[in-house]
Amino acid sequence: MRQFVVLGHDVPLSGDFSLDGLPGEGRLDLLSRCVTAGLLLSHGIREDTSVHLVLGDKMTVRFDGEALRGLHPDERSTAALIRSALEQREEAIGHIPVETSPGVFLTRVGFEETLEMLATDGTICQLHEQGTSLTDSEPPDNPIFVLSDHQDFQPTERELLSEYSEQKLRLGPETVHADHAITITNHWLDTDGYSMV
Amino acid sequence: MRQFVVLGHDVPLSGDFSLDGLPGEGRLDLLSRCVTAGLLLSHGIREDTSVHLVLGDKMTVRFDGEALRGLHPDERSTAALIRSALEQREEAIGHIPVETSPGVFLTRVGFEETLEMLATDGTICQLHEQGTSLTDSEPPDNPIFVLSDHQDFQPTERELLSEYSEQKLRLGPETVHADHAITITNHWLDTDGYSMV
Repeated sequence: MRQFVVLGHDVPLSGDFSLDGLPGEGRLDLLSRCVTAGLLLSHGIREDTSVHLVLGDKMTVRFDGEALRGLHPDERSTAALIRSALEQREEAIGHIPVETSPGVFLTRVGFEETLEMLATDGTICQLHEQGTSLTDSEPPDNPIFVLSDHQDFQPTERELLSEYSEQKLRLGPETVHADHAITITNHWLDTDGYSMV
Repeated sequence: MRQFVVLGHDVPLSGDFSLDGLPGEGRLDLLSRCVTAGLLLSHGIREDTSVHLVLGDKMTVRFDGEALRGLHPDERSTAALIRSALEQREEAIGHIPVETSPGVFLTRVGFEETLEMLATDGTICQLHEQGTSLTDSEPPDNPIFVLSDHQDFQPTERELLSEYSEQKLRLGPETVHADHAITITNHWLDTDGYSMV
């Protein structure tokens, strides 16, 4: 299984936003593309993959490939799934997730709780410019990649990451958007570290 | 220099479409993501790259990284640039391009004329499931990658491609959306064929 965690710092947690201006709503355009980059193949869904959007360090929306229905490739419809999840936040009590549409779950947890829960699932990896290059690395079992939106990781997030992550990986010589980073990572995993392209 | 050619079969050439339902307008969501996947880095534009959208085999909209201004990562604003180009189609006479916004050019040419013009620029490559794997290939000089939208290449397009393309390349074991294919290809080129990740 592979998982992606993406930190969204500025999404309005009320779910009160228009779908016509996604870049102005905490870069929901980027976060939506991260979901589809993580989960979609040309003719289907990656069933062995989950994407977790950690929003404002308070709510986490998980897209679970195995159970997911109705995920389309465009930003707007994916953002609508995120909005619908946030609109149902009152249904989520404590740390128990609520399924807000098929395969989409909202939980009232922030970054630390998310890392804590995922740490037993596999190997937490940070994508980092000073990391080991993908070429020199073997894909770990059950990798969990952590990325940030258009903003860098905040100091407290960086501390948590250095506590929980076991690998720092460098994608390449160019710094790319988070959704493109996810596509590259999926490709690296699909090809078992570029060995079976 | 690197170039991407993407065939868009169903975009309304009148430019008469709403930005609220891009998937229903000839998959303008996908075509917009192809443009941004080809051209955007995290903090800038790939100046050595162009993306050509061949629309309905009649109009070609070229995004030229060197001259481009105002390209944002979201689908909607990119689709607006495409719409604006199509709205100015009457300004394009014969095969002479018209610059419809900074770095965006519309020309009244279809697929064959586009291939003919590009053939002298570099090596035309087809991304193909039966091609040579990226791992076993060296990036050619001045590569020009040709892709199709959500539809397969049509028989006449396939004939033209086999006439003009010098390489068939296979991305990997999974079949991915055209925009993800462009991201993977850019990564392969950025890393000089995975050798300098």
